[in-house]
Amino acid sequence: MSTLLALYGRPSGGDDAYAAFEQAYAKTHLPLIAKLPGLRALRVARVRRSLTPEADVALVARMNFDDWDALKAALGSEEMHVAGQNLAAIGGAELATLLLVEEAPDLIPESAP
Amino acid sequence: MSTLLALYGRPSGGDDAYAAFEQAYAKTHLPLIAKLPGLRALRVARVRRSLTPEADVALVARMNFDDWDALKAALGSEEMHVAGQNLAAIGGAELATLLLVEEAPDLIPESAP
Repeated sequence: MSTLLALYGRPSGGDDAYAAFEQAYAKTHLPLIAKLPGLRALRVARVRRSLTPEADVALVARMNFDDWDALKAALGSEEMHVAGQNLAAIGGAELATLLLVEEAPDLIPESAP
Repeated sequence: MSTLLALYGRPSGGDDAYAAFEQAYAKTHLPLIAKLPGLRALRVARVRRSLTPEADVALVARMNFDDWDALKAALGSEEMHVAGQNLAAIGGAELATLLLVEEAPDLIPESAP
């Protein structure tokens, strides 16, 4: 499995600014992400606490694809272009760290649940 | 679901240093993580590419628990204490960003796969 992992920091402006961003993200951005060709699953999680004081991450999104080729195709798609423009429009582009990751089952011990 | 999300940067020393860290992480750290009470799933992914040039993340681990109480209990466990000591011993503590996150299904559009 290949995943586009998006980490979002907090906008300046405090809790109100964050709430406005989160609402715009959920109402306008994620429906565009849901249209990405080859998308298998979309998950979002809120950071409730950080054990690393300097970490500035408020929201984490995972977009799963079958494999690397499917992820690359989605990145080059018109749907992603539209989603990227939307992210910039809602002020999310400057908050985002975007990572392309691949599951590494070879690192998982057999004893893991 | 509540998740302990661990993001690891690259150690200084180039590819050899990273390979040594990854091997120690897989062989000594993850078997200790696998023992955490209440752990439901353990997934690790390698960062293959970053779309954000300044991002320093090489490895991402997700440790899933049923809920916040189970995650907190695991954090306070003797097993986590031992795993934390091991992480420091293999040079991973200074590379890690540790986030406690909670799934936010309320943000996911109905149109998502």
